[in-house]
Amino acid sequence: MPSIAYFGPEGTFTEQAARALAPDADLLPMPTIPDAVAAVRAGRTDLACVPVENSIEGAVSATMDSLAADLLTTDTATRPVVALAEHLLPIRFSVLVRPGLAAADVRTVASHPHALAQVQRWVRANLPNAEPRVAASTAAAAVGVVKGEFDAAVTAPVASRHYELDVLATGVADESDAITRFLLLSRPTAPPAPTGADRTSVILVVSHRPGELAAVLAELATRGLNLTRIESRPLRDRFGEYRFYLDLDGHIGEQRVADALAALRRRSQHVLFLGSYPKAEGVAAAVESPFRDSDYADSAAWVTAIARGENV
Amino acid sequence: MPSIAYFGPEGTFTEQAARALAPDADLLPMPTIPDAVAAVRAGRTDLACVPVENSIEGAVSATMDSLAADLLTTDTATRPVVALAEHLLPIRFSVLVRPGLAAADVRTVASHPHALAQVQRWVRANLPNAEPRVAASTAAAAVGVVKGEFDAAVTAPVASRHYELDVLATGVADESDAITRFLLLSRPTAPPAPTGADRTSVILVVSHRPGELAAVLAELATRGLNLTRIESRPLRDRFGEYRFYLDLDGHIGEQRVADALAALRRRSQHVLFLGSYPKAEGVAAAVESPFRDSDYADSAAWVTAIARGENV
Repeated sequence: MPSIAYFGPEGTFTEQAARALAPDADLLPMPTIPDAVAAVRAGRTDLACVPVENSIEGAVSATMDSLAADLLTTDTATRPVVALAEHLLPIRFSVLVRPGLAAADVRTVASHPHALAQVQRWVRANLPNAEPRVAASTAAAAVGVVKGEFDAAVTAPVASRHYELDVLATGVADESDAITRFLLLSRPTAPPAPTGADRTSVILVVSHRPGELAAVLAELATRGLNLTRIESRPLRDRFGEYRFYLDLDGHIGEQRVADALAALRRRSQHVLFLGSYPKAEGVAAAVESPFRDSDYADSAAWVTAIARGENV
Repeated sequence: MPSIAYFGPEGTFTEQAARALAPDADLLPMPTIPDAVAAVRAGRTDLACVPVENSIEGAVSATMDSLAADLLTTDTATRPVVALAEHLLPIRFSVLVRPGLAAADVRTVASHPHALAQVQRWVRANLPNAEPRVAASTAAAAVGVVKGEFDAAVTAPVASRHYELDVLATGVADESDAITRFLLLSRPTAPPAPTGADRTSVILVVSHRPGELAAVLAELATRGLNLTRIESRPLRDRFGEYRFYLDLDGHIGEQRVADALAALRRRSQHVLFLGSYPKAEGVAAAVESPFRDSDYADSAAWVTAIARGENV
């Protein structure tokens, strides 16, 4: 049975994502995101599950920085990781209370500040006598209810597995469109087979000459590759210097993607391959001329022929 | 005396930045970042001060979304805002305690979770008997100490102006390089004069055809404009669709920048000008050929001449 490290504690949305991404794995909660990534890097677990992006909060900085650690260290013991899969989780909360407590009797409702912000209107309408209380995580709020510190906790649905509390409500969210994207990480291994709806992720550092990033993106554009995400992050010690996270449609098993990655390698100071994996929301689409593998095979054969003097 | 809305409460780092950016202004704390931006949009204040980027946490999503509100609404009452200045604030904390309390007697130390994370090592070394407690903000932690809920609070230095507490330590930070960038916002007005070390900020929405962003960046590159930051944010209701925040070196008063902005206007579905303003850390540098205003004047004169039949 494989083991999977995830950003804990038990009972969080990341646990839900880890269960969805690796249903048979042994779950190991870690205190921080860097700890979860470090566990799989060092081989202490087979897999890791971390949040990478939220439709409301944006990129998860701790994950971005942990994935880029290879670029920031000279420590050769830091081993790379790749993504094998992604999972989209709609963020809907459960409200847990002490057994038997009615909504009208809830005086305090605790959660992580981000979670409280996402259920404000629901709390005003449904727990009219409750005051908000801040907890370190959604799961810590549930622990606080068990201990009698709070009357109610706003948590991930999976928290009800871990704490003997009543579920007062479930599917709670002021905005129904909040989604978090999670990645399943492993040490480098052959990527999953192309599905026709895949994503390839890379991190790169480009020099600061004007136009360097434009040149990198032109390498993708000329190969018909659609960029689905670009994010710049300051390099920690050097405010004003940046590295870039790119997600693009396609799989390294396709010639146009392999060819583009080789071009990024020539052009960038550093480029880190974070994997090719199926898109969670993708629909397979045919690649069109001149970007098909057959186009690449034909053109390569032609170049080989003319180099031999066989002009055709 | 101008008025300035800022992301409060009193005693936060944003108050410090607001005092630095508008020393003579009347300070009005607002409960959220969107409230501060809305105050200046609606004309309830002359100015606003909001955090835009942190060297450790990355972009401040609430600010990015508030600045882009013009793109997301069809409400014509939403008036645009521009940045007039920026301020870089090193993030170093003060530790405030109840008057007379010694470090060894501190049993609980409270702050916002981000602040607690940034002083973890200092707390272990200097407050060996203290347990961390989560508060909604650094200023809320100080209020908690005043009320006797906690022994110590990790706060912005300016908090000591507002609360009658002892300053146990100041300049506290595990990593000495944490910096937050703040913007001074106003309703649209003529930008401050070019200094030779300026930044121009825009938000744009480009279509999803492969290569569209590459084409936009090529418009900047061919004019010698250095991109200092690029950030993609999903559009709230449409996960997978993105808008882009760009910071580039230069001032709209320079021909190369004005010309590039006109090209972005032609190429993008939407483009929102967020201002040209002096860089906080900038050193003035001469623009070189062929990107000088004189190069633009010469080439425009030549085109005018040949169009008249005066080939030269």
